[in-house]
Amino acid sequence: MGIVVNLESGQSASPSLDALSHLTAEDLVEVNELIVRAMDSRVELIPQLAGHIVAAGGKRIRPMMTLISARLCDYEGKRHIGLSACVEFIHTATLLHDDVVDESNLRRGLESANSVWGNQASVLVGDFLFSRAFELMVADGSLDVLRVLSRASSVIAEGEVLQLTTSNDTETGETAYLEVIQSKTAQLFSAACRIGALVADRPKVEEDALETFGMNLGIVFQLIDDALDYSAKQATLGKTVGDDFRDGKITLPVILAFRRGDDEERAFWRRTLEELDQTNDDLGHAIDLMTKHGALDDTVERARHYGAIARDAMGIFEDRPEKQALLDAIDFCIDRAY
Amino acid sequence: MGIVVNLESGQSASPSLDALSHLTAEDLVEVNELIVRAMDSRVELIPQLAGHIVAAGGKRIRPMMTLISARLCDYEGKRHIGLSACVEFIHTATLLHDDVVDESNLRRGLESANSVWGNQASVLVGDFLFSRAFELMVADGSLDVLRVLSRASSVIAEGEVLQLTTSNDTETGETAYLEVIQSKTAQLFSAACRIGALVADRPKVEEDALETFGMNLGIVFQLIDDALDYSAKQATLGKTVGDDFRDGKITLPVILAFRRGDDEERAFWRRTLEELDQTNDDLGHAIDLMTKHGALDDTVERARHYGAIARDAMGIFEDRPEKQALLDAIDFCIDRAY
Repeated sequence: MGIVVNLESGQSASPSLDALSHLTAEDLVEVNELIVRAMDSRVELIPQLAGHIVAAGGKRIRPMMTLISARLCDYEGKRHIGLSACVEFIHTATLLHDDVVDESNLRRGLESANSVWGNQASVLVGDFLFSRAFELMVADGSLDVLRVLSRASSVIAEGEVLQLTTSNDTETGETAYLEVIQSKTAQLFSAACRIGALVADRPKVEEDALETFGMNLGIVFQLIDDALDYSAKQATLGKTVGDDFRDGKITLPVILAFRRGDDEERAFWRRTLEELDQTNDDLGHAIDLMTKHGALDDTVERARHYGAIARDAMGIFEDRPEKQALLDAIDFCIDRAY
Repeated sequence: MGIVVNLESGQSASPSLDALSHLTAEDLVEVNELIVRAMDSRVELIPQLAGHIVAAGGKRIRPMMTLISARLCDYEGKRHIGLSACVEFIHTATLLHDDVVDESNLRRGLESANSVWGNQASVLVGDFLFSRAFELMVADGSLDVLRVLSRASSVIAEGEVLQLTTSNDTETGETAYLEVIQSKTAQLFSAACRIGALVADRPKVEEDALETFGMNLGIVFQLIDDALDYSAKQATLGKTVGDDFRDGKITLPVILAFRRGDDEERAFWRRTLEELDQTNDDLGHAIDLMTKHGALDDTVERARHYGAIARDAMGIFEDRPEKQALLDAIDFCIDRAY
C-alpha cells in the first residue's frame, strides 16, 4: 500500500512530506477554515495580525501530526479538526511571543508580526490565540485532551525560560540543551500526536507510542533546525544564516565545537556568543570551526539517533500509508540538513 | 449579623475590605500556599520572578471574590481554593504582560518584573503562569469552570488589544472605553465570582447574580483606578500620579474633559495624549481642566451607577456576613477615590 500512496502523491526517491500532505489534505482544509473562524474578533487587529502569522504558517506540520495520528488510529469523527487547530494556535501564540523575546524582524522570509505591528500587539494577540485554543478544547469537551495540552503549554513556557537562562552561556552542556529543545519544541509534537490517539480512544500503549514518536521527531526537527542555522542550505528556507549566532544562542553545533576546541577557540566562542562582540568575519570563522570539528555532521548524527527511536516507537502499528507517512517525516526532517 | 461581623473584624464607619479579609482569611492561607507550590519549577527564574509579582500582590481581591462567593453559596468543599489560585494566576500573567506592553518600571511602588528581569522573562513567565492556571483547572476537573475562565481569558486579551488600538486616540468615546474596561478588568472579577457559585452547584439565577455583581464591581474598580491616576490620593497607593497621562491612555476622566472642553482645550489634549508632546506643567494643567469640567467627580458618579447595579444584583441572596462583605467591597472601591 505504501507504494500506491507514493505514486498517488508523486513522491520521489528523496524523502518528502508528500504522503503526509496528501493523506491530511482534506482534513487540513477544514482545519484552515476553522482557524480563520476561530481567530475572528470584533477587535480588527486580532484577525489581521493572527492572519499574518497563520498565513505565513509554513508547513502546518504540527496540526498535520494530530490529523494523521487520528487517521492512523482509525478515528472517523470530526474532533481531530478542532484539536488540530488548537495545536496550531498554541504553536502560533508561541511564535508570536518568541519573536518578541528574540527581537526577530523576519519569520520565514516575511516581516515578523512584531516588526509590523509592534511588540505590544504581538504579546497580546499571542495571549488571545492561546486563550482561544483553550476555548476550542473546552468546546471539544475532553479533560484528557485538556490535560495533555495544558501540560504541554506549561512545559513549553518552562523550556523557553530555561533557554533564556542558558542563552549566552558557553558552558551549557548537551544535556541542558536537550532539555530545552525537548520542552520548547518536542513537547508540542508529542502532544499533537498523542491527542490523535486520544480522540480515537485507543489503548494506552498506542497513545504512548505516538507520544514517543512525536517527542523524538520534535527533537530531530529542532536539531536539524539548529544545524541549518549554520548551513548554506538555510537561505533556501527563507531564513537568514547565523541568526542563532548573532543572538548568542547556545545550540548543539556550538556546544560540540566549543567542547572539541582549544583554548583559543573557546575564547572566540566566549567573545562572540557571551559578550556578543562580533565582527563581520566571525560567522564564517564559526562555521569553519564547526566544520573542522565535525560539529554540524555530528548534530545530524545525533538527530539520526532520535529519528531511530521515533521509528521504533511506531513498530506496534501495522504497515499502512499513515504509518509510512509518519516514518517519511523523520527522514524528511533529517534530509533537510543536506 | 452584619453588626457582629463589623465588630469582629474591627470595621469602622468608613467602608473597608475588613469583613471580606476576615471571612476569607483561613481560605486565603491555603490559596497562598497553593500558589507558592504551583509556581514552583525546575527552572529557578520562574518561582523567582513569579514570586516577586505574586508577593507584591496587593489585596488579592480577585481570588477573595471566588472564596467569598463560594462561602456565600454554602460551599463546604476545597475546590474553591484551587480555583481561586487559578484566578490569581490569570491575573498575575496579565499583569506581567501588561507591564511589558506599557513599558512600566513600577508596580505598586516596587520595581516591576520587566525592569528587574527584562521583558523576555516577563513574557515567558506570564505564559507559564497562564498555562499553570489551566493545569490547575484541569486538575479540578470541571468543564463548566474551564469554559468560564477560558472565555474570560480570551475576552481579557481582546480587551487589551482593543485598548492598544484606542490608545492615544482622543476621539475614543465613553462606550468604547467602557468596552475596554469591561473586557480587560471586569471580566475576571465576573468570572471569579461566578465560579464561586459554580463549585457550590447553585441554581443558574445565583450564578448569574454573582456574575453581574462581579462585572459591575470590576467596572467600579477600574473607573476609580482611572480617576485616581489624576488624584493626589494616588501617591498613598504606591503608584505615581499621571502614569496614564504620560502613556497617552484615553480613560474616562480624559474623555469627559475632552468632550466638555473648547477647541483650545481639545488641542491641548491632542498635543499631550496623541502626539505625546508633553512639558512638565502639562499634567497639572490636565488636572485643572478635569476639575473645571467636573470630569473626576463625574467619573466617580459613573462608578456609583455601576456600584448600584452590583448591589441590586445581590438582592436575591439573604442577608448574611458574606453578602455584606461583598456590598462593603463596592463602597470601599468607590471610597478609594477620596
